[in-house]
Amino acid sequence: MAEVAPIAVDTLRDFVASALDSRGVPEADAIKVASLMVEADIYGYGTHGVFRLRQYLARLAGGGCNPTPTIRIAQETVATAVIDGDNGLGHLAMSAARDLAIEKARTAGIGWVGVRRGNHAGPLALYVRPQAEAGLLGMAAAVGSANHVPPYGGSDLLLGTNPIAFSAPADGPDPFVFDMATTVAAMGKIKTLLQQGEPMPEGWMVGRDGNPLTDPARKSEGFLLPIGGPKGFGLSVAIGLLAGVLNGAAFGSDVVDFTSDTASSTNTGQFVVALDPTAFGMGDDFARSAARVFAEMRASPPLPGHDPVRLPGDGKTAFAQDRRQNGIILKPALRSDLNTLAADCGLPAPFPQEAAG
Amino acid sequence: MAEVAPIAVDTLRDFVASALDSRGVPEADAIKVASLMVEADIYGYGTHGVFRLRQYLARLAGGGCNPTPTIRIAQETVATAVIDGDNGLGHLAMSAARDLAIEKARTAGIGWVGVRRGNHAGPLALYVRPQAEAGLLGMAAAVGSANHVPPYGGSDLLLGTNPIAFSAPADGPDPFVFDMATTVAAMGKIKTLLQQGEPMPEGWMVGRDGNPLTDPARKSEGFLLPIGGPKGFGLSVAIGLLAGVLNGAAFGSDVVDFTSDTASSTNTGQFVVALDPTAFGMGDDFARSAARVFAEMRASPPLPGHDPVRLPGDGKTAFAQDRRQNGIILKPALRSDLNTLAADCGLPAPFPQEAAG
Repeated sequence: MAEVAPIAVDTLRDFVASALDSRGVPEADAIKVASLMVEADIYGYGTHGVFRLRQYLARLAGGGCNPTPTIRIAQETVATAVIDGDNGLGHLAMSAARDLAIEKARTAGIGWVGVRRGNHAGPLALYVRPQAEAGLLGMAAAVGSANHVPPYGGSDLLLGTNPIAFSAPADGPDPFVFDMATTVAAMGKIKTLLQQGEPMPEGWMVGRDGNPLTDPARKSEGFLLPIGGPKGFGLSVAIGLLAGVLNGAAFGSDVVDFTSDTASSTNTGQFVVALDPTAFGMGDDFARSAARVFAEMRASPPLPGHDPVRLPGDGKTAFAQDRRQNGIILKPALRSDLNTLAADCGLPAPFPQEAAG
Repeated sequence: MAEVAPIAVDTLRDFVASALDSRGVPEADAIKVASLMVEADIYGYGTHGVFRLRQYLARLAGGGCNPTPTIRIAQETVATAVIDGDNGLGHLAMSAARDLAIEKARTAGIGWVGVRRGNHAGPLALYVRPQAEAGLLGMAAAVGSANHVPPYGGSDLLLGTNPIAFSAPADGPDPFVFDMATTVAAMGKIKTLLQQGEPMPEGWMVGRDGNPLTDPARKSEGFLLPIGGPKGFGLSVAIGLLAGVLNGAAFGSDVVDFTSDTASSTNTGQFVVALDPTAFGMGDDFARSAARVFAEMRASPPLPGHDPVRLPGDGKTAFAQDRRQNGIILKPALRSDLNTLAADCGLPAPFPQEAAG
């Protein structure tokens, strides 16, 4: 077996864009979405990057996702808006929401922009990191794209992993960028283990009998567990209200499982926030103060058996720079899957050295 | 021993107001703070209500808290503000922040109001429930009033319990009101166990040796644990940035322990948000949609050994109504403590039937 070569980010992006284009997505939108998907891999969010191409293509082919949406502002004030994603690829509405939130924050101190009729949009980090790079604070959340979690103490699947993300500028190489599911494990990580043929640790899922479930192939038989029990439940409901109900988007039983159902509109709800520290009297002092606290935390002596303290986002800038320059090494199962998708789309294999083997 | 009679809420409020007044707080402010403290007990937040009177009086007497603050708006846009609490009792700045956030939400769709130079203000629920009762969504968070938590994997206490709260209207008797610490246990609950002479469950705290710590009297020897490990850590840092650093308030090593230090200004930071669903095109549809999802959740069959599913806030309206009408039964240790404080302040004992015993 030949040594695995990294794939250049431009090559990967062009392949993803061509695949989307082959399913009817106009070129400019295809490049925009492909760039964001590759950006997710560049920053190490491997479960939410090109790994999702299969799902997106299936929903475009199945009619569940509109290849030619018109993204528009449905509601607007000086500080808020709702963007109607017209059931297009989720990255389009969410990047529009992010840009509009940043614009509003510059004039009103805050921009809070919701999305309705969106779709899965990759990792929320894509929609908060730019705020921090522009000197603003960011926040984003989403109603998860399938229900894997029951209400606390119950047994019907009525909640998704409902992730939330935050960002902030800090003097130094890395902004604070934190992106979490409100469950102990994100479904993306479980799907990655499934693709790699590895078991889940105990504590990620339980079966309907209450016993631990560790086989990722049996994930549909059990529940994801919220962090902190009733706390994670409450947080997940709050996110569902703010990202879903407030925008007129799906929450509860009207959430469509975007993997098993490729034909229905999901009406995915999300929101993106930007806050300008200048409006709070902080200006550049914010990044300086944040860096001071982060330095204290990194200097805290590690507990026995722990690595030195890291802040969420630490090392990401250098990591991404390396991948931009030297390319990305994808897992064997994903390389093989992308080759298969290329054949389905009538495109050359992105990993031709493996297509022959 | 005589049967314990409930204390009428007006009697309790008047006693608390008189005690604050005896430490130099002007009557109007004393009544406002006392009303909010009793409101916390009325809604069942016993660890954050009149239980805290001893701390507040100690900080007023010690010079750490300004009895005669001038609460003012330090920064303002159409949608944001920073309120300077002038180091007064925290309830004054936080109730002003809440009212201003609601006012801004009515015109700009959102109001996001930060607080600097505040103090401990009781449960965050006090500053989000009124939004829901007015048909708005609420959010609030605070930098905890003492550092009990190390950064994930570290050993220096640089984070507080950093709570966050959310609220939303829902058709039916109860709005959604959710108030959580980002630690497995809140320090208030540990203090209550200490006052009651009961041990902590395992999992709330660990000692510096990494072993479980269950004696609440030894709480200063260990750490509180964040929910979900690194997730709770990231969430706590995000709250510290939004509630502390963004407002020019304390975060990290400059957080003052408001219990052990009664002489220093804490510069406590908090924020309160209000969102108007009308600005998002939802109007009354919001409360109807939220109620629909909540009804689905409550109808979800309980897991073996679990009570029926409840949403955060369920039952609080009737519970509070009962306490408003029939009074509040306080724990023996708290009744005794309030009698002692009354004597310190030169006031009649609020529980005279016990003062003699």
